[in-house]
Amino acid sequence: MTASSPIALLTDFGLTDPYVGQLRAALTRLAPQSNLLDISHNVEPFGTGQAAFFLAASAPHFPADAVFLCVVDPGVGSGRALIGAELGGQRFLAPDSGLLGLLLSAPGADAARIYDLSATAGTYQASATFHGRDIFAPLAARLATGEPLAALGEALDQSRLVKKPWAAPTMLDGALLCHVLHVDRFGNCVLSLRQDHQLPAEVTGHSPSPGERHRLRLVRTYAQLAPGEGGALGGSQGFYELAANMGSAERLLTLRPGDDVRLLFGEAF
Amino acid sequence: MTASSPIALLTDFGLTDPYVGQLRAALTRLAPQSNLLDISHNVEPFGTGQAAFFLAASAPHFPADAVFLCVVDPGVGSGRALIGAELGGQRFLAPDSGLLGLLLSAPGADAARIYDLSATAGTYQASATFHGRDIFAPLAARLATGEPLAALGEALDQSRLVKKPWAAPTMLDGALLCHVLHVDRFGNCVLSLRQDHQLPAEVTGHSPSPGERHRLRLVRTYAQLAPGEGGALGGSQGFYELAANMGSAERLLTLRPGDDVRLLFGEAF
Amino acid sequence: MTASSPIALLTDFGLTDPYVGQLRAALTRLAPQSNLLDISHNVEPFGTGQAAFFLAASAPHFPADAVFLCVVDPGVGSGRALIGAELGGQRFLAPDSGLLGLLLSAPGADAARIYDLSATAGTYQASATFHGRDIFAPLAARLATGEPLAALGEALDQSRLVKKPWAAPTMLDGALLCHVLHVDRFGNCVLSLRQDHQLPAEVTGHSPSPGERHRLRLVRTYAQLAPGEGGALGGSQGFYELAANMGSAERLLTLRPGDDVRLLFGEAF
Repeated sequence: MTASSPIALLTDFGLTDPYVGQLRAALTRLAPQSNLLDISHNVEPFGTGQAAFFLAASAPHFPADAVFLCVVDPGVGSGRALIGAELGGQRFLAPDSGLLGLLLSAPGADAARIYDLSATAGTYQASATFHGRDIFAPLAARLATGEPLAALGEALDQSRLVKKPWAAPTMLDGALLCHVLHVDRFGNCVLSLRQDHQLPAEVTGHSPSPGERHRLRLVRTYAQLAPGEGGALGGSQGFYELAANMGSAERLLTLRPGDDVRLLFGEAF
Repeated sequence: MTASSPIALLTDFGLTDPYVGQLRAALTRLAPQSNLLDISHNVEPFGTGQAAFFLAASAPHFPADAVFLCVVDPGVGSGRALIGAELGGQRFLAPDSGLLGLLLSAPGADAARIYDLSATAGTYQASATFHGRDIFAPLAARLATGEPLAALGEALDQSRLVKKPWAAPTMLDGALLCHVLHVDRFGNCVLSLRQDHQLPAEVTGHSPSPGERHRLRLVRTYAQLAPGEGGALGGSQGFYELAANMGSAERLLTLRPGDDVRLLFGEAF
Repeated sequence: MTASSPIALLTDFGLTDPYVGQLRAALTRLAPQSNLLDISHNVEPFGTGQAAFFLAASAPHFPADAVFLCVVDPGVGSGRALIGAELGGQRFLAPDSGLLGLLLSAPGADAARIYDLSATAGTYQASATFHGRDIFAPLAARLATGEPLAALGEALDQSRLVKKPWAAPTMLDGALLCHVLHVDRFGNCVLSLRQDHQLPAEVTGHSPSPGERHRLRLVRTYAQLAPGEGGALGGSQGFYELAANMGSAERLLTLRPGDDVRLLFGEAF
């Protein structure tokens, strides 16, 4: 049995450079009993929205005592704060870049306790450019081996965190305005719209190209769509996805990560 | 010592999306003592033939009690069966898509016991689109922690499984007709021809482009080929490979995964 | 507690083919208590200089008793020697291809003990093309489970190893001539110049294209550069990097891995 909590890793380091290997090596030295679990290291460089989605979608499937080390950090070396969050036994470390935005906007997440760990972070002798290995890893190891998060920083009100426009959908001119958080390997386009949000059986999606408009049938599985037909479904990730059966919604609907999408309801097509 | 069997993973999920991380997280929760070993997650989307090769080539190198969780599943959400197989102590979970085809056509593999696990699979509350995490993972965990495969499904005759044309080479007009299962990182083209199949020292390969025909010398190592020369060798994966020394057979012979190749013997060139 | 040393892996096998999975499976069978830690498997095919950099930069962050299994091997199947090295408790296995060149040119590394393991390697029944799985893995497992390196080969003088031109920078016509070892995911260009080498606050870099010359400010963090400005900094990897703030030095300076760079000092621009 391991006495240490598992540590989940989420970065934009990629799997070619030796950065992930050095991060895992540092964690292995500092918390040798911890199981290291990768969420993804292929977040688009500086892709905070994509990382926020990966984290919010994945955390519920991880062990209840997991520590999440998240580094997608456009501001490394600048003065941005290092944040710790605690929610239902899980603990999260991330730069204050909006990365925790979707996790903390989930139902029930207002119970999260937030801490500013910047002062503790400043006590580490760190390379100027690789805070993941030199600061986040030792902090994660301390959490995984039993140190309480509250001991590492000062409590902070959740409202003080950086907030990004994609953290929640908004109504605009009768349409639901949301954002393509991520396009997956199969071309499914994940929207910044939680699947507990009720949608009518038929929606119309405007993609950002002027005049492009697609009827989207709300279905339960890809197989319910005809070949070449676009649809919307509550996927496996907790957010609505635009999908095509055995094809790519990305290509069918000409969408890319970061695009805005307007959803219209009950409209004659 | 771990009391749980190791679990080998083979999917087409890629390493960017958070799917592999969620699959591994689910397995870590359900079988925390199991060692998780990746075969590959970069199978071409829906690339059943490539996955079948990866599995057949890799299983002999894995521990004798390993559980293999294989998800390359063009039919997720449709009615396809979920298959369990047991062969020499190793256990295999896969959709009935042909994925087990090369494993089960190996010498001695007619001793495998096959089960249809669809009824047990149906008892899980699953997302419609991610059966790997929601159905395969709990089934794999049950096998890894000691439940017998026979308790999870109904015995099925091997002849009832989906069979793909690439599962075995055939003779056609005096040529041995086989299939490019996979092109590896170094440009080697793996054929659907086991290397215990005797070949003469010189073969002629026709690629599918009309009129393209290459003399291929049968060699033991890449280094025996002259630069730019194409050859065939019994590789490290149990199947013949077409190769070029310090170069790419894929480019030299203009082959792609899925192509048919006709091999001729004893013919004047 | 594990009684076995951790094993670090560095290869050019990529993460699509099943080679890494088979290598890890073999190690799991032979050294089941060893923690397997990947440095990278995405070294450019046959990219010995890149691999040498990954190894030299990463080893200091790994556990003091780690065994490093390094396979970037243009000469597989030819007669090249298999080398073992011991330095400060860590042990290294690599082909004699220059891969250990940057590790062994580090300050203090002349204390390393070098062995030729070719005779022991020859006792394994191996596929002709996959020595990583069939020879390196069993040797690494023997080291990890306690066998001393000296028992596996004959002592060899370090001067007898293959040496590559990029192993150390040289002075040429008043300029410091070095080499782009690696371009990372963020476009930073790592030079074959250790960061304990003193540089003046301003340097001028010539890239190989005739006439291209860039003023490079020596900075401590990316954030100290203006957008679009190129700079040099002692990075997190022990070697100088050419960098651009929130941009790609690779594109700004039109550099590629393998390029030569000449650095000039104190010169009017």
